Amino acid sequence: MELQLALDFITTEKAIAVLNEVGDGIDIVEVGTPFVIDEGLHAVRRIRQAFPALKILADLKIMDAGEHETIAAIDAGANIVTVLGVANIVTIKAAVETAKKKGGEIMIDLMDVPDMEKRIPELDALGVDYFCVHTSVDAQAVGGNPLADLRMAKRIVKNARIAVAGGIKQSTVKTIAAEKPDILIVGGGITGQADKRAAALALKKAICE
Amino acid sequence: MELQLALDFITTEKAIAVLNEVGDGIDIVEVGTPFVIDEGLHAVRRIRQAFPALKILADLKIMDAGEHETIAAIDAGANIVTVLGVANIVTIKAAVETAKKKGGEIMIDLMDVPDMEKRIPELDALGVDYFCVHTSVDAQAVGGNPLADLRMAKRIVKNARIAVAGGIKQSTVKTIAAEKPDILIVGGGITGQADKRAAALALKKAICE
Repeated sequence: MELQLALDFITTEKAIAVLNEVGDGIDIVEVGTPFVIDEGLHAVRRIRQAFPALKILADLKIMDAGEHETIAAIDAGANIVTVLGVANIVTIKAAVETAKKKGGEIMIDLMDVPDMEKRIPELDALGVDYFCVHTSVDAQAVGGNPLADLRMAKRIVKNARIAVAGGIKQSTVKTIAAEKPDILIVGGGITGQADKRAAALALKKAICE
Repeated sequence: MELQLALDFITTEKAIAVLNEVGDGIDIVEVGTPFVIDEGLHAVRRIRQAFPALKILADLKIMDAGEHETIAAIDAGANIVTVLGVANIVTIKAAVETAKKKGGEIMIDLMDVPDMEKRIPELDALGVDYFCVHTSVDAQAVGGNPLADLRMAKRIVKNARIAVAGGIKQSTVKTIAAEKPDILIVGGGITGQADKRAAALALKKAICE
């Protein structure tokens, strides 16, 4: 199980400082959507320069122009690019084919997909690399959490790997990790802690036990 | 009827050159999603500095963190911010309330909304400022166009204004304009032309007749 650190509300300077602090405590760094909106793919490019060996996910939440956006993100240095599960199937196909050609991977963000049990098998057959079961920041604020959806995804996904995101922290990580997702995504559970490296290592320990 | 120029696959430098060229031939400039992904909100900030009086739409296609993203876009200089119609209602509400507080406006992008006749009245009642009937770039490539959806939206929207986008150019503008949308969005129909100012003025003339 890999630990992905989501960097959302942050500048590139501070992101690099956080990554220096957490070091090898994490497996993947996510350049989150608000971070991309603020800084553009320049953020991915600068993190790639500073950390040549780090796995980077660019959380573009692609909704259109699947080929163009996938190329842009991978060329900037991303290994994994996100596409919205609610996007047009033509967009998702274009992203998957482009990523395969470029040696990158596509993660489908299942946020607000209305009928997941129908949509997941359709996209799984297309050859997407990951599904991300994702309770949005705004849905977390009204009590949402990703556990039920994670269980459902584990049951029906045949090919892709599964990531999970949505307010995961030290107090909840065991329950989530027990469902054996492939990637566990944490944001504030690391960045909001005084000792970020200790927080990452504690989470890593919890998911490896 | 206002003419909105969508700038999608472009750098900030070139965008400013295009805006100098089209000048008052357009009413609104859209900093398109691929442009935001490439350059971040820096693009909006630089266009606002260069054109203090121009109406700017930031095509963020917000899917989460409605309040944060709306504040970021308006603070960067945007007058209008887009939110996906497929987003969680909590996100859309947060964006609408935040925009009202900050003196900005929200446009709902109807791209790939599965049941528009149900979703539109629900969001219209929330107080969104615009709906954008939008055939995606990827859907245009397989023959999609926004005319039928525009007619449907004109029929059922009670409060918001209506924008339309999706491959509109000189040869198709009359048919679309005949449906009387409030904003007509054109990208390549202007940026892909040798004389961009002449193209903008010709489109403006066509929609005002």
